[in-house]
Amino acid sequence: MSLVEELGERKIIDLILGCLDQMPNMQVPFGDDVSAIDIGHGKLAVIKADMLVGKTDVPQGMSLWQAARKAVVMNISDLAAKGVQPLALLASIGVPRGLSRKDIQHIGKGLNAGAREYNAYVLGGDTNEASDLVISCSVLGICQKRHLIRRSGAKPGDYVAVTGFFGKTSSGLKILLENLSAPPEIREELVNSVLMPHARLREGLALAQTKAATASIDSSDGLAWSLHEISLASNVGFVLDNLPVAQEAEKFAKIHGLDPVELTLYGGEEYELLATIQPKLWQDAEKAVETVGGFLIKIGRVMKEKTLLLKAVGKTVSIEARGWEHFKQLRSET
Amino acid sequence: MSLVEELGERKIIDLILGCLDQMPNMQVPFGDDVSAIDIGHGKLAVIKADMLVGKTDVPQGMSLWQAARKAVVMNISDLAAKGVQPLALLASIGVPRGLSRKDIQHIGKGLNAGAREYNAYVLGGDTNEASDLVISCSVLGICQKRHLIRRSGAKPGDYVAVTGFFGKTSSGLKILLENLSAPPEIREELVNSVLMPHARLREGLALAQTKAATASIDSSDGLAWSLHEISLASNVGFVLDNLPVAQEAEKFAKIHGLDPVELTLYGGEEYELLATIQPKLWQDAEKAVETVGGFLIKIGRVMKEKTLLLKAVGKTVSIEARGWEHFKQLRSET
Repeated sequence: MSLVEELGERKIIDLILGCLDQMPNMQVPFGDDVSAIDIGHGKLAVIKADMLVGKTDVPQGMSLWQAARKAVVMNISDLAAKGVQPLALLASIGVPRGLSRKDIQHIGKGLNAGAREYNAYVLGGDTNEASDLVISCSVLGICQKRHLIRRSGAKPGDYVAVTGFFGKTSSGLKILLENLSAPPEIREELVNSVLMPHARLREGLALAQTKAATASIDSSDGLAWSLHEISLASNVGFVLDNLPVAQEAEKFAKIHGLDPVELTLYGGEEYELLATIQPKLWQDAEKAVETVGGFLIKIGRVMKEKTLLLKAVGKTVSIEARGWEHFKQLRSET
Repeated sequence: MSLVEELGERKIIDLILGCLDQMPNMQVPFGDDVSAIDIGHGKLAVIKADMLVGKTDVPQGMSLWQAARKAVVMNISDLAAKGVQPLALLASIGVPRGLSRKDIQHIGKGLNAGAREYNAYVLGGDTNEASDLVISCSVLGICQKRHLIRRSGAKPGDYVAVTGFFGKTSSGLKILLENLSAPPEIREELVNSVLMPHARLREGLALAQTKAATASIDSSDGLAWSLHEISLASNVGFVLDNLPVAQEAEKFAKIHGLDPVELTLYGGEEYELLATIQPKLWQDAEKAVETVGGFLIKIGRVMKEKTLLLKAVGKTVSIEARGWEHFKQLRSET
């Protein structure tokens, strides 16, 4: 009989989803970044829950304040990808023995800081004794039904865009977990990308207003995996011709003889948005995101064939459908 | 420096709440059974999160299916106490190594069963590897603003009522955890009260329609503690003259030389509703609850003085403000 350690996180989720009755009139299918219910007047209540566990989501060097803030930000990022303003969060906390009163306050302040950065509030929660630190957040937002961007709308010919450069978190994790060195001018940027993630909320809200985006996802499981997810949900493929490698990741890769493409495609714990954009509305999308202080990088096109391809220096290679399942493993999905 | 094991669950919650910015126009104060935001058109979106942890919330004898169902029911119970229909749940699951594919399906089916019993649906969730089994649920419901019953409205002179008899879960836990014996005719009822808790949703919804209830809470931390919570939130006291001791608990107490009053007042993991009712609307409340197949037991009155008293066999004794903080301890609140 298969044990959970062989199944992996995504198979476990599929097993559980397979046991659930489906709500009539589901507004967002199982497995999208968020869930939603129709609340009338053309609006949706959008909810998401995501749990942070100390031993898999909190690398050494991350403070309790940062861990609590991250637990909030990773939930907000999913609403950002759908173009939904988060309003209220709840936090259920599993507290291991040995934490002090001050530790608890650091957690409380980190939760509050994460929420307030995005104009949301933590309204309540629950605590329990647990062996690991567990910070399980859920978030609620309300949006116009017509604004919510699902994973399923990408069409052949659409542009593929991201809201930032990739590879910094996978480099930063190698610094924190494997003690790899980095020169001071890039070290802080790489490490901070892990310790202080940012949700691209302004960008997601701006995109939702333009109606230019046909599909969107956050890239918390890595760029390649996010492409794979949109591919499955929209029944399309991708060809990338402009890999968004962060300069800092490029430098870091060079120093350690690492492959910058690997760092960029198969990292994780990144919270950039990956969106597909109708070509005729590209300029609207670009302008909307720039107006709120962000930018869009066009990285490729959506294709009819369900393959993931990367064109680089004259040759075309396959992008593997693999991603980051927490810190333990870079594994192939079966 | 105080460690969490000395602080206890409620102090930890207070420490965290003390770190949070308060949302303007809070619809329900911090620390009530649920949180809520105004969604316009006279309605509230009501949310609640509550986490079940294997080692403190799952006694031996409880299956994974039952544990998952309980994780849902304990969330629904909080909405029931406020008179709010639950619609959608999310479940974040911390999965210990060694669980099988079948175990995961038992968890999925238990989640689904808990939700469907109350006409709600599980819409999604998240899994992570963790040392303990953790099932962290959150629930969303929508209600008319005027229907939500807070903890804070109890007035001197109101009747105090509960939706069932008490003492069964504390007896059942003694059977499961301390291997105390019980005759077959009561054993199943006592053990099932722990393994298969029921939320009093029909009763809560019916009460909310009558507007007879001035305050309400679920009794998951025990009857005495629930009285204490309403006392704090409403700035009132209570005098009970009709302790709702379950017959089965009375029998069990007699067999083992236990105090039935102790079992009734200071148990926990019970999901009866405790409500205060305007005397002039008592008959409406009673009838509404009976119409949906339940009943109300009048157990005492609300008083101006902030004390908790029990009148029994000619004498009046104090009810202590103590409750059940999980399975480990019956402790005094400092």
